[in-house]
Amino acid sequence: METTRIAILGYGNLGRGIETALAKAEDLELVAVFTRRDPASVKLASADVPVYAASELAAHAEEVDVLVLGGGSATDLPGQTPECAKLFNIVDSFDTHAHIPQHFAAVDAALRESGHVGAISMGWDPGLFSLARVIGNSMLPDGADYTFWGRGVSQGHSDAIRRIPGVKDARQYTVPVPAALEAVRNGENPQLTDRQKHTRECYVVAEEGADLAAIEQAIVTMPNYFEPYDTTVTFISQEELEANHAGIPHGGSVIRSGQTSDGTQHTVEFSLKLDSNPEFTGSVLAATARAIGRLSREGVTGCKTIFDIAPAYYSPLSGEELRSHLL
Amino acid sequence: METTRIAILGYGNLGRGIETALAKAEDLELVAVFTRRDPASVKLASADVPVYAASELAAHAEEVDVLVLGGGSATDLPGQTPECAKLFNIVDSFDTHAHIPQHFAAVDAALRESGHVGAISMGWDPGLFSLARVIGNSMLPDGADYTFWGRGVSQGHSDAIRRIPGVKDARQYTVPVPAALEAVRNGENPQLTDRQKHTRECYVVAEEGADLAAIEQAIVTMPNYFEPYDTTVTFISQEELEANHAGIPHGGSVIRSGQTSDGTQHTVEFSLKLDSNPEFTGSVLAATARAIGRLSREGVTGCKTIFDIAPAYYSPLSGEELRSHLL
Repeated sequence: METTRIAILGYGNLGRGIETALAKAEDLELVAVFTRRDPASVKLASADVPVYAASELAAHAEEVDVLVLGGGSATDLPGQTPECAKLFNIVDSFDTHAHIPQHFAAVDAALRESGHVGAISMGWDPGLFSLARVIGNSMLPDGADYTFWGRGVSQGHSDAIRRIPGVKDARQYTVPVPAALEAVRNGENPQLTDRQKHTRECYVVAEEGADLAAIEQAIVTMPNYFEPYDTTVTFISQEELEANHAGIPHGGSVIRSGQTSDGTQHTVEFSLKLDSNPEFTGSVLAATARAIGRLSREGVTGCKTIFDIAPAYYSPLSGEELRSHLL
Repeated sequence: METTRIAILGYGNLGRGIETALAKAEDLELVAVFTRRDPASVKLASADVPVYAASELAAHAEEVDVLVLGGGSATDLPGQTPECAKLFNIVDSFDTHAHIPQHFAAVDAALRESGHVGAISMGWDPGLFSLARVIGNSMLPDGADYTFWGRGVSQGHSDAIRRIPGVKDARQYTVPVPAALEAVRNGENPQLTDRQKHTRECYVVAEEGADLAAIEQAIVTMPNYFEPYDTTVTFISQEELEANHAGIPHGGSVIRSGQTSDGTQHTVEFSLKLDSNPEFTGSVLAATARAIGRLSREGVTGCKTIFDIAPAYYSPLSGEELRSHLL
């Protein structure tokens, strides 16, 4: 198994998750971390791996086979990924579904011009959940798709609560409605509104003397984020938040329900239960970096998604080993 | 979307399942069925599709883009698939796990020599379950694999009961043990024996005057098939068998349970609940025929498995459509 030299851009939760995943893979070697902070202020979990300023990316391009981007989709990746694609084979986790086509076009153009290969929108949704959707749709063309998220922490919704005056900290869990999940699993093909699919549980630490009723009202009436859902708000202390809500668990299910002939019903389900969203996402990005390293050695160029990569590329096992042990 | 011309070899349960699946796909056209029976005796569900003797395969090779084999793994496919690979792009559902490497080698050699492409061991296990295993192993390299089958009808075990003297008909269901499934889903990583994972339920129609106690004893002590499991035997009438056990449902779950760092646990599960095993398997083979038709048009040759085919190839949607709607 050939070694692939990996660098990480960005050392937040996801960057650390990628680093953790690389430690489990003998053929993937972390050779550098790039940061927009002062490199001297960044302490890696990995010993002896250099930390460089993001401005020095170009100077280290020859030392890296695949650059894995740990940034966020809102402000980091739309600019970073196409820029990095001029110099590196890349992997990112761009997850703003509505903007994927334009992100793909920008990254693909940069990769083709520079002769590199990359994969965008990897992780679990988009990523493994997308794989489950294309498999479900292809094998059951006459059917319906359902995606349930949770029980898990939504960073975006937690941030939205934190922006409300009087809120010190908050954690929001997205929770699938058990009856809806059950109906879908039973092949009942229900039509479900947002409210019927998920509830939202909010754990909020208020500032001293804050108007709790006003905070609760601001949350449950917030358009798009909370108004379309049944939302519960529970005020807790900072200590309780840190003791019971420190993790970043997530997960969910993609279900394809369909029929092959009249009344002959089938259900295909892919589910994840994750203790740590960034560590699992990092693990998917690490396996994708292996795939991109291989595609690059084969001379492939341009932008890929999970739809375009044969599954064997993610595995360190050979074709013979895969056929003997996993087929 | 280009049309792919499909022929089916073998018109048993699986052959009919493939035919049913093709009717749901606008871009897949059934152009012929080949049979080892008298072609005049075979009545297709599809109007206007010719039935030919299997001995005439060579004469129709030019009319067919992909030949899908509906035969069984025990006696049909080991000879048929390599033989057909001399003339056709092929898809089969070879499922004798221990013999996959030698079957792959024989089919690959024939396909390369004739300049064709094919996929073996497609369906759901091997097939979609294998895909779930390689994804689970790649994304969670530090973990354990579990496969549960059922609740579903095992044809092999039903046949084994029918061979016992005094048995007129039988249906055997493989059933996962709920507590074992639950422990695996909870990330407990249990070590499980065959007996702890599955039970076997047998519904038996005895011949008039048969010794029921002797039949039951013959079943529960049968080596490999029933002795390693907790097996229940229920005698029923032929009418009850036909009324309540006529279907061929199946399904199961592949679960990968692992950790990305100490104590950080993740569970990846892929599950199927199928009203009809042959119709769903046929549907997977039909989507694979689409993929093989495309690979052939791209000039690819040789034998593939589900590990070697990028997911987009199974779908009639374009790359742009997939990225917009399913990513």
